[in-house]
Amino acid sequence: MFISRRARDIQASPIRKLKPYADEAKKRGIHIFHLNIGDPDIATPKAVIEAFHQYEGPILGYGPSQGFEELRQAIADYFADYNIKLTADNVLITIGGSEAIHFSFSVVADPGDEIIIPEPFYTNYNGYATFAEVKIVPLPLKVEDGFRLPPADRLESLITPRTRAILLCSPNNPTGTVYTEEELRQVVEVVKKHNLFLIGDEVYKEFIYDGLKHKSILEYPEIEDRVIVVDSISKRFSSCGARVGAIITRNEEVYQAVLKFAQARLCPPSVEQYAALAAYRMGMGYFEPIRLEYQRRRDVLFGGLTSIPGVVLQKPQGAFYMICRLPVKDSEHFVQWMLTDFSLNKKTVMVAPGPGFYATPGRGLNEVRIAYVLKEEDLREAIEILRQGLEKYQKLFG
Amino acid sequence: MFISRRARDIQASPIRKLKPYADEAKKRGIHIFHLNIGDPDIATPKAVIEAFHQYEGPILGYGPSQGFEELRQAIADYFADYNIKLTADNVLITIGGSEAIHFSFSVVADPGDEIIIPEPFYTNYNGYATFAEVKIVPLPLKVEDGFRLPPADRLESLITPRTRAILLCSPNNPTGTVYTEEELRQVVEVVKKHNLFLIGDEVYKEFIYDGLKHKSILEYPEIEDRVIVVDSISKRFSSCGARVGAIITRNEEVYQAVLKFAQARLCPPSVEQYAALAAYRMGMGYFEPIRLEYQRRRDVLFGGLTSIPGVVLQKPQGAFYMICRLPVKDSEHFVQWMLTDFSLNKKTVMVAPGPGFYATPGRGLNEVRIAYVLKEEDLREAIEILRQGLEKYQKLFG
Repeated sequence: MFISRRARDIQASPIRKLKPYADEAKKRGIHIFHLNIGDPDIATPKAVIEAFHQYEGPILGYGPSQGFEELRQAIADYFADYNIKLTADNVLITIGGSEAIHFSFSVVADPGDEIIIPEPFYTNYNGYATFAEVKIVPLPLKVEDGFRLPPADRLESLITPRTRAILLCSPNNPTGTVYTEEELRQVVEVVKKHNLFLIGDEVYKEFIYDGLKHKSILEYPEIEDRVIVVDSISKRFSSCGARVGAIITRNEEVYQAVLKFAQARLCPPSVEQYAALAAYRMGMGYFEPIRLEYQRRRDVLFGGLTSIPGVVLQKPQGAFYMICRLPVKDSEHFVQWMLTDFSLNKKTVMVAPGPGFYATPGRGLNEVRIAYVLKEEDLREAIEILRQGLEKYQKLFG
Repeated sequence: MFISRRARDIQASPIRKLKPYADEAKKRGIHIFHLNIGDPDIATPKAVIEAFHQYEGPILGYGPSQGFEELRQAIADYFADYNIKLTADNVLITIGGSEAIHFSFSVVADPGDEIIIPEPFYTNYNGYATFAEVKIVPLPLKVEDGFRLPPADRLESLITPRTRAILLCSPNNPTGTVYTEEELRQVVEVVKKHNLFLIGDEVYKEFIYDGLKHKSILEYPEIEDRVIVVDSISKRFSSCGARVGAIITRNEEVYQAVLKFAQARLCPPSVEQYAALAAYRMGMGYFEPIRLEYQRRRDVLFGGLTSIPGVVLQKPQGAFYMICRLPVKDSEHFVQWMLTDFSLNKKTVMVAPGPGFYATPGRGLNEVRIAYVLKEEDLREAIEILRQGLEKYQKLFG
């Protein structure tokens, strides 16, 4: 039977595709420390859970396609706490950050058009690019350089007549890099000069360490109408399963176009929007203890990993991921082997193979992404398992 | 700034785009009977509301991309009650029926490929066709023929080398037609002969009147691997705002491809899936009183409308919609006028203009879709308003 090209081409989630091996291991009684996916173990705020309890009905009807106005206003207010001025009409609620990515790719680019993204990058950009028949042009970064952005001319050398946008994720998934004002300024100039959109994935902006500050691409008035920010409550409020995100844009034409996409899928889930509203109403005080918790975890993981021979990584500045080079030739094989053939006291570790975070074939083969979404004592145990696993793996496979 | 072709081309929802006029009318204190959208006034089952109350957390994490297994099994069991054998692995949970439509279009067709759909049809097929860059080829049906399917040769005459699928919606939104076994059999033969997929939208299958029975396209073993059914709890359980739907297919290749689409958007909303599970666990006894309620409403509306001079319609057999021809030249103008210029005792009626349900330009201009989603006394009042509105409108505009 005929299956469409996009269906054949779209990647299986490289983060999720090893799940069958994990399931097998669990069946054998192995406990798995899941450092492969950004699914935090931080409890969802009580306010969110209570919002579900307060839902009264009587009719769970359609909501507005752009999301409930109270929630859109609450998100505008939340941005105001970052000194970013928005109105509720700059905010369109999406079904998770995923839909925000899908809509933003679909609105700026026709099939075959190009979006430049520094790589390694969040693997689901690949999925949505294929789904929207858009081409991702990677801007290759390196672990040795701390995944910093190169000078503007390297970025400009990738621009073609089909380039429509640049996407920046900061704090970055998967590298943990937080772009400086200087790095952002260079990209802003390129965007202006070449008449492009700038898509910003800033869903991790609460998770920034060592006193660094988050600079949003919404803070550059000169490209005000070129900016589309994709947002989500998933990590911000430990509510990944709620599927509530947003598109933020001051470009009215973009907003109206995205609204038409949104109308086709009618509305985001209603009760989960009430839950999101409750989360935003907690105020900014909620974030500081969580930020400190992640910072401690980062320190534990970074300290532990740098003590393993042959592991190369830079200290992440934000989000809760890091990309490490491991002393292996094929990280996917290593990750699978850790699930099928290795355990320590009936426990093992699952991380995400590197290639899924790259568009350039052959890159990331000796890298993995590690998410520090577990509590300290689990991380310490996971590091020890990784250390011994790597040692044994190197003896077996060189 | 450059905006993509799909963003320019995608229709604003014809059902939702008149909303500003409705909002204006409401501001002037006018009560509106909403017969324009299939948002039922039937209370959401207590079991669904209680499922929200029972949600305990502690972490609202990601679920599986294909949806929770218990829910997939519950849906398979529900189909078993219709004597349709499925396993949980034939069911993939989607974010509303909308996403099921989007995935099914995207998996069977490349950009530029064609899907044949009898028209008038559910307007959001248009939206998703544009979004997926797929071309809808309409098979024109007529109100005078009760929107019955024509002989197979008319259908076959529309097939080109780019045809990938035929989509049938039964019970039909917007016409209320329920296809007979004979009609379905003809389509099944065409699908086999021309190596096509058959997409079935059967979300209204509980709402069938006058003792008619629903025949599913899943009941034809000879095209078992060609069938994709899009499903939803929205109407079935008066839970439109939950955004829980499903794709049903026995074609493993299609399932795996759709799963890759699903992985890109991570997972459907978690708590709303628990709510859906509670709904399915109510069992089949839930439906009969609701079915009878809709049948009464249909009778009231059909009786009332046929008594208005110049109105042409066929008695709908299922779902809760009907397409009527009105004695007007431009139904969109009439619908808008009812909101801006007409009221009876501070009340008016909103229906959906016909052209949004057609792909053929110029069709549906003198038609509207009416949803009987309100209780009897409201429907009686709405009919009287429509009668007097039409009378006045004809005097003004001929």
